[in-house]
Amino acid sequence: MSEIKASTKEKIILGLDPGTNVMGYGVIAVKKTSLILLQYGVIHLSRYTGHELKLKKIYDRVINLIEEYLPDEVALEAPFYGKNIQSMLKLGRAQGVAMAAALSRNIPINEYAPKKVKQSVTGNGNASKEQVSAMILTLLQIKDAPKLLDATDALAVALCHHYQGGRKVQNVKSWKAFLSENPDRMK
Amino acid sequence: MSEIKASTKEKIILGLDPGTNVMGYGVIAVKKTSLILLQYGVIHLSRYTGHELKLKKIYDRVINLIEEYLPDEVALEAPFYGKNIQSMLKLGRAQGVAMAAALSRNIPINEYAPKKVKQSVTGNGNASKEQVSAMILTLLQIKDAPKLLDATDALAVALCHHYQGGRKVQNVKSWKAFLSENPDRMK
Repeated sequence: MSEIKASTKEKIILGLDPGTNVMGYGVIAVKKTSLILLQYGVIHLSRYTGHELKLKKIYDRVINLIEEYLPDEVALEAPFYGKNIQSMLKLGRAQGVAMAAALSRNIPINEYAPKKVKQSVTGNGNASKEQVSAMILTLLQIKDAPKLLDATDALAVALCHHYQGGRKVQNVKSWKAFLSENPDRMK
Repeated sequence: MSEIKASTKEKIILGLDPGTNVMGYGVIAVKKTSLILLQYGVIHLSRYTGHELKLKKIYDRVINLIEEYLPDEVALEAPFYGKNIQSMLKLGRAQGVAMAAALSRNIPINEYAPKKVKQSVTGNGNASKEQVSAMILTLLQIKDAPKLLDATDALAVALCHHYQGGRKVQNVKSWKAFLSENPDRMK
């Protein structure tokens, strides 16, 4: 019985886009060639005063997501460049705290640079945030666009991880094909 | 009875000096004016291949120290400058993971810049690592000098936190006074 369960088990991917002011998150399930949206959202960190409290909020939210959805893998959007040394230290801390939450539950983490995420999801490494968002809405059949693009960014890195994992999904289209079918999505 | 316990309870401080290659740690107990050394050491991260594994080792060690010594407070040595953007991102992650371990147990974190630690412990913000180490050995009555200065750095930030906490310990001497009494410690 456990064997049957294992073979039909869906894979849950938690995508995270941790930043200093906002952290986006998204959870998807992959079952054979189906992609299922489970959850997505953002935490607004700017409302919390104090660097430590912001980090605590990131940690707590990631732990909550892990406990609720039991993801098999975590995909992290990780920029490797920033404005300055100060901002990179802060970004590194935000990433580190989010990673620690996954590490504490022994969930493997995979990192993807923003360009890689864009390339993987839209076929264009230089796609705009809006273009990525539009593609995500289509792929995951989301009707109401989330207000903040950080949430779709987190879903994008989860999808990117899935595509990189080798299991090619039939319904992935190139950005060009997507645009020709969805001219209204063009900005 | 719990009241008596509370009033005589010693305060445990965990000092951390997380870096990309080595993390130093030190645990001290403060009871009235006494300082008691409980533990100190380093983790060599360079022996682990893979950034994720290094971060996991930091997290696990800090959690182990917290579970063993139940510190009331964590003191973090936190440089705010670095060589370049890449190294600051890595340092930020190492700090973030160590901080997350404390945050996960709701232990308050206090950060101190290296200069502040040196100033607090030796009276000289520009003291060398060796000078800081020598002062720590005296203050905590450590006979065998640890091989790595990162361990004494971690004890130094724990002590710095104690001194900053307002409880002045009688036996803190200036670096000048210390040197005149310990000429052999002069490098």
